[in-house]
Amino acid sequence: MSIDREKFPPLYRTVAINDDGLNSHSYVPGGLDVVTSSPLSETPGANPEQFLGLALSTCLNATLEAIEKMRHLPHTSQVHTIVEYARDTKGFQFYVTAQIRIPDVDRQTAIAMADLAERRCPVAKLLGGSPNVTVALVDQFSDVEPVTVKAK
Amino acid sequence: MSIDREKFPPLYRTVAINDDGLNSHSYVPGGLDVVTSSPLSETPGANPEQFLGLALSTCLNATLEAIEKMRHLPHTSQVHTIVEYARDTKGFQFYVTAQIRIPDVDRQTAIAMADLAERRCPVAKLLGGSPNVTVALVDQFSDVEPVTVKAK
Repeated sequence: MSIDREKFPPLYRTVAINDDGLNSHSYVPGGLDVVTSSPLSETPGANPEQFLGLALSTCLNATLEAIEKMRHLPHTSQVHTIVEYARDTKGFQFYVTAQIRIPDVDRQTAIAMADLAERRCPVAKLLGGSPNVTVALVDQFSDVEPVTVKAK
Repeated sequence: MSIDREKFPPLYRTVAINDDGLNSHSYVPGGLDVVTSSPLSETPGANPEQFLGLALSTCLNATLEAIEKMRHLPHTSQVHTIVEYARDTKGFQFYVTAQIRIPDVDRQTAIAMADLAERRCPVAKLLGGSPNVTVALVDQFSDVEPVTVKAK
């Protein structure tokens, strides 16, 4: 990426706020306002894992949609991102697995499209330096078994 | 980070889905379901920029809250994350600026807390390899002037 703000000025700017911690709400002024809670509690609410998964799925699929358009293909791509929360040597870590499915195109074309999407999508670029992040083309999405180990 | 899934098994797992592209909705099965739209359009909706900002603000502030607890301090920390969307040499990129404010503690303590939060928060860890991401302690939050350059 090239952080040359003069060459590449912002086309869009937003701000996302959390003032009161994990068991509260996070919001965009004038926009989305979401109740949040610990992923290890039974209290309903979204959490950083879900927000990050939504960011990557939406961004990758928006990029795939643009690639489909370039190739004069109908939109069929889908993205499911699995985010897991685990302890780490220090603090905690996320494991992030984005699965891309592009039905109705041949395998070679699908591989090229998924590869290009991973290199173009801004969220994938930001996460690309981490060994904890995987982006994979799949024929079928994995069944995602929810896990919640209750906090003590 | 240490991706040793046997040593650090997932404590929590979720999946976030986008099937229909940028002008549709993104969702967590049984959870958050959010209308999405292009950040360059006037159609109301959330977007990857907002989701990513919400992930980082919520995660950093949850980590700060835990640090406050360790130090027997009342919770006062706040996190505002500015996300900007710009062209890049290839495709697009985000500029991400997280501002941390911890009123009522002395500057040296606040610096130590913000530094620890950046090293412990899983979302900050994932983004830490990118030169596009800044985490900064501030006395006052920046005024965020919205920018939207309409798509042609």
